Amino acid sequence: MGKCANHPDRETSFLCSKCNIYMCEECQKCRDPEIFCKFRSSCPIWFIDKRQKDWDRETRAEEDVKTFKVIFKPEDREISVPEESTLLDAAVAADVHINASCNGKGACGKCKLIIESGNIKSEPTTLLSNQEKAKNYILACQTKVLGDVTVKIPEETIARKLKVVGMGQEATDRFKGLVKDIQPMLMEIPLELEPPTLDDSVSDLDRLNRGLKKTGCDVDRLNVGIKVMRELATVMREDNWKVTVSVVRKKCSYEILDIRSGNGQEKSLGLAIDVGTTSIVVYLVDMTDGAIIAATSGHNRQSACGDDVINRIVCAEKDGVAKLSRMALATINNLINEALATVDGNFKDIKNVVISGNTTMTHLLLKIEPRYIRREPYIPSVSEFPILKAGEIGIKANPIAAVFIMPGPAGYVGGDIVSGMIYSGLHREEPLTLFIDVGTNGEIVLGNKEWLMTASCSAGPAFEGGGVRWGMRAEEGAIEKVSIDPETLEPTFSTVGDVSPRGICGSGMIDLISEMLLTGIIGQDGKYKIDQNHYRMKQNGKDLAYIIAFADETPMEEDIVFTEIDIHSLTLSKGAVYAGFMVLLEQAGLDFSMIDRMLITGGFGQYLNVEKAITIGLLPDIDHNKFKYLGNSSIAGAYMALLSDDYRNEARLISNNMTYIDFSSNNRFMDEFTSALFLPHTNLKAFPSVKII
Amino acid sequence: MGKCANHPDRETSFLCSKCNIYMCEECQKCRDPEIFCKFRSSCPIWFIDKRQKDWDRETRAEEDVKTFKVIFKPEDREISVPEESTLLDAAVAADVHINASCNGKGACGKCKLIIESGNIKSEPTTLLSNQEKAKNYILACQTKVLGDVTVKIPEETIARKLKVVGMGQEATDRFKGLVKDIQPMLMEIPLELEPPTLDDSVSDLDRLNRGLKKTGCDVDRLNVGIKVMRELATVMREDNWKVTVSVVRKKCSYEILDIRSGNGQEKSLGLAIDVGTTSIVVYLVDMTDGAIIAATSGHNRQSACGDDVINRIVCAEKDGVAKLSRMALATINNLINEALATVDGNFKDIKNVVISGNTTMTHLLLKIEPRYIRREPYIPSVSEFPILKAGEIGIKANPIAAVFIMPGPAGYVGGDIVSGMIYSGLHREEPLTLFIDVGTNGEIVLGNKEWLMTASCSAGPAFEGGGVRWGMRAEEGAIEKVSIDPETLEPTFSTVGDVSPRGICGSGMIDLISEMLLTGIIGQDGKYKIDQNHYRMKQNGKDLAYIIAFADETPMEEDIVFTEIDIHSLTLSKGAVYAGFMVLLEQAGLDFSMIDRMLITGGFGQYLNVEKAITIGLLPDIDHNKFKYLGNSSIAGAYMALLSDDYRNEARLISNNMTYIDFSSNNRFMDEFTSALFLPHTNLKAFPSVKII
Repeated sequence: MGKCANHPDRETSFLCSKCNIYMCEECQKCRDPEIFCKFRSSCPIWFIDKRQKDWDRETRAEEDVKTFKVIFKPEDREISVPEESTLLDAAVAADVHINASCNGKGACGKCKLIIESGNIKSEPTTLLSNQEKAKNYILACQTKVLGDVTVKIPEETIARKLKVVGMGQEATDRFKGLVKDIQPMLMEIPLELEPPTLDDSVSDLDRLNRGLKKTGCDVDRLNVGIKVMRELATVMREDNWKVTVSVVRKKCSYEILDIRSGNGQEKSLGLAIDVGTTSIVVYLVDMTDGAIIAATSGHNRQSACGDDVINRIVCAEKDGVAKLSRMALATINNLINEALATVDGNFKDIKNVVISGNTTMTHLLLKIEPRYIRREPYIPSVSEFPILKAGEIGIKANPIAAVFIMPGPAGYVGGDIVSGMIYSGLHREEPLTLFIDVGTNGEIVLGNKEWLMTASCSAGPAFEGGGVRWGMRAEEGAIEKVSIDPETLEPTFSTVGDVSPRGICGSGMIDLISEMLLTGIIGQDGKYKIDQNHYRMKQNGKDLAYIIAFADETPMEEDIVFTEIDIHSLTLSKGAVYAGFMVLLEQAGLDFSMIDRMLITGGFGQYLNVEKAITIGLLPDIDHNKFKYLGNSSIAGAYMALLSDDYRNEARLISNNMTYIDFSSNNRFMDEFTSALFLPHTNLKAFPSVKII
Repeated sequence: MGKCANHPDRETSFLCSKCNIYMCEECQKCRDPEIFCKFRSSCPIWFIDKRQKDWDRETRAEEDVKTFKVIFKPEDREISVPEESTLLDAAVAADVHINASCNGKGACGKCKLIIESGNIKSEPTTLLSNQEKAKNYILACQTKVLGDVTVKIPEETIARKLKVVGMGQEATDRFKGLVKDIQPMLMEIPLELEPPTLDDSVSDLDRLNRGLKKTGCDVDRLNVGIKVMRELATVMREDNWKVTVSVVRKKCSYEILDIRSGNGQEKSLGLAIDVGTTSIVVYLVDMTDGAIIAATSGHNRQSACGDDVINRIVCAEKDGVAKLSRMALATINNLINEALATVDGNFKDIKNVVISGNTTMTHLLLKIEPRYIRREPYIPSVSEFPILKAGEIGIKANPIAAVFIMPGPAGYVGGDIVSGMIYSGLHREEPLTLFIDVGTNGEIVLGNKEWLMTASCSAGPAFEGGGVRWGMRAEEGAIEKVSIDPETLEPTFSTVGDVSPRGICGSGMIDLISEMLLTGIIGQDGKYKIDQNHYRMKQNGKDLAYIIAFADETPMEEDIVFTEIDIHSLTLSKGAVYAGFMVLLEQAGLDFSMIDRMLITGGFGQYLNVEKAITIGLLPDIDHNKFKYLGNSSIAGAYMALLSDDYRNEARLISNNMTYIDFSSNNRFMDEFTSALFLPHTNLKAFPSVKII
């Protein structure tokens, strides 16, 4: 039981799962945006509701446009959409998360749905098998609504729990003692002030400043807003001159954001958030001791607008950046709610937030114009952000919570990389280090405590499952490890979650190609060499393909295959990354032999088999002991910056002092890239440990 | 012709005189607060409208409450009010300005109205003469509405134009060259930036900061908000990397508040505003050369809540501080509109504002809790204010205009006094100076460039016309100078505006009492000494009174008289001020002979005859050449601070370093006060130049 957030005089047992506030019956029913929920700016329910209303309004305005109901099973989500809307639009509006890697172009074939009933019109597609078509599969983005429709989200389309390292106890142990002296951005300073007398009649604000000065606060640099000035007099007298002041530590000044009566200790929570293009990770942190008390992760809902940052920017240009911001916020705020629920926490206790993401992600999240990131000369609007307030950007935390956005030095080297630096510490140490984060882009950093160079190469979405027939992210059912018996050519594999295979993720593909190369199934050119009639081989459309799992092993009852086109996609990706290494080293006048260590991070990296990655020529053929896998270094760096002003300042310094090398118009990069389109490489001497049969 | 502010596609010729925005026919008609006018937060029209709606709504809610129409003539203002509302409430709601010195207590008798028709219920009062009662006069605060009513505002109740010095050319000449180096708070910095290239690919914000750094801006202390970050990319490219940046100079940092494309010069206007308890003065200033291009003044509408600051605070405690804030804002914004209209200016060009007022006035204006100012130990919420934005406090200027509030050291020594210091320069100079501002309160400053002491004595409203039968402010028709023929005892007087007399103002009263004392009409005890049957004498109720003007000389057709009670009120006021001088000097170990100069400021001071003020014992009997009249030093200091960062910093220093002496529980003050209740004083030796018959 609790008090209704809108009507404090009413007791109610209904706790909104989205907003974590109590609501009385009236408020549950009415959903009037004006009174329903004061957290509506970040509430997914409210947005769906609003979207519905917008549509209703448009419909009323233009009487000719009919609307139809779409029901999504198995969750039975319902939404009304105008005639001729695509089912993908309907899914986005209904907040149903389905994959749509290509942003609705009909190119990726991921947004499969099964029509249960209703009148629709589908464009023809080659991305569905005849078996699928027979089962009423359609592609959501290629199907328009002509009447009320009921659809089912098939097994393979439902987005599943990502496997993310660093959850709960594991993370707490890993990060224990990483930050000794905790310095939150938003400090809560308890004070007991001397009551005023005729002989000591300074103003309330001066009295407060005097108290703050005694605690070491530089009051000459202290600002205060009109809201606090209006509350001061009452609050200071409420509990006999005992108050707690919330002061935010900015780059070069302080600001009093809140004052409350009483000087007892309140809970103080923090959030470290890694906003990835694909997935978002949230750590809920106890700011008193730095313990990670909950961790959650989920798919970035922006995926409905495409897999990579370019598609997201295109979508923002078309539909407005607010839409993309809302999608990311809905994901983040749901994850915050989930995390809070596990510890029975209250969002009002969250007073410090650090967000780490690539440059496009931070721009979209903050509704900052991203369009020039994708146009030469690839300029972001902002590299270094001021401390913001959670309330002004829509993060589900105390509205005055201080938000630090990890600075990012360039359009394609963002705050996630700077976060990685903070965690790796390479900028604090002597050894010459090559740092690599492979996701949709491959970001590379080279350097040590003396200097840092960075570059980005467009690796493409292959490692994350994009552009590959059965490619998928490292979700439940993804094949993540593969070996092939050199005699029988029979594969052995394991999947995420040890369930029946639903597709293959990045590390699985690297294993697979490496094994196929070493067993002679494919040649160095990535073409199949073995007998086309081998029972593991089949024709997939015009392409030859290797069958990893037969239909009867899979929940979809279809063969999971790997085509020559899939191999080519992977080769392009690994070639771009390797070319990136080569050119960056060349620019610094170095070669691989001079590298003291190589740090690997990023989503796909966590299951990476280094030896096999060398075999296909993704990683250089150097001493295997020099490789170190960092896990998700973006969230780790965000966590460190959450707790320490020193790390926040380090992040600003790194971002300002990194030298960014642009590859987009670099001829050497094109040459190196072409040379790297062989397995492992055209220059076999560079890979002495790889023994091709 | 211009574009409708709400519908940019519509051309219209209607320019709202209040808001200076164009409105199409639909917008003129509907007055829907949501779409009518985006400046509604400071629009008096809108507030009246809203108040009307609130009443309508309340009425609908409680069906039992009837509403009636009240029409105010001669302006024909109409308002609906609930049954039993007082006519004073109706006048406030209808935005009709009538005097109500005592805040509706029925004590001052100033809020006279004439009932033309309708059903009312009046409390009995002794403050109306039989003549007046016969003419259907009532007191607005003592009369309730029982049906539709039409009332007329009589001549003597209509608030007239105040006589305010320092208008137009006169002021410009006076202030010419006072500030050499103009340093606005909100700087508009034109920049032409290098376009980005692949080799110079810093973010838009970094590019902007680089440009600002070249102009000398300390970018390490520069903040920027989310709104500007969102606009950056588009604006910077709009006019080929030519931009103008609005940067506000705060106490210890800078903030980018706006960016627009193009780097041409825009107009920049400033406002210096003196918010007095009685009247408000606005100077409109050209920030490029410091010229005062318009000046307006008017009555503070808060007067409907009483004449003095105590009544205002009481009213804020009862009705909420927002009401008082709205009243002051309505006055200020009307004066701004008036000023803009005279020069055909646009409020958007106003980008710098300085407000000077006593501590209560600034608290009320900013909606900051004032209640502890009137309770021992008399603590204001805030002494030194940060730079605010016009938009957040409701001043009619560009919403991002920087607002500096003159700091005030104590509850009863406010920013208007600090403003006076800035203008007088006494804190910069050697001579020992006594500074006095007599309004409702008498604020005194003693000191020089080495030290400053200050105190406030409650002079009461007598000098401004309060508590005096025919007392009034220095408005048109006020008797401002008086002399009396010692033979005939016949008075000669002049009035403000040279019209028929309607009452007597502060300087007139000082003249009158001085003359009556010197001609023996009254004694040193303030009692009438001459024959009660003298044709200039009459009985006014129980009191003996001197007739200054006979009924046939006045527009009200009533005798203007001065009673013994009136003399007593004045004696209390002058006694408090003189006692203040004495105690402050004593605290500093000084006496009058050591004073090098005496500076006089304040509304009543401008017509003050120094010799006569000495005669009644208001001013000390020192060398007349030591007296200097400063005019309205509050507006003058505000003007100087508007143009110069140095003066703004000086103001902060003065406010922090003044020693405030509290008189409220000071026994010496009570002794001195008692001694000063004679004319000129019990100690005649202190007034050697005053020769009483």
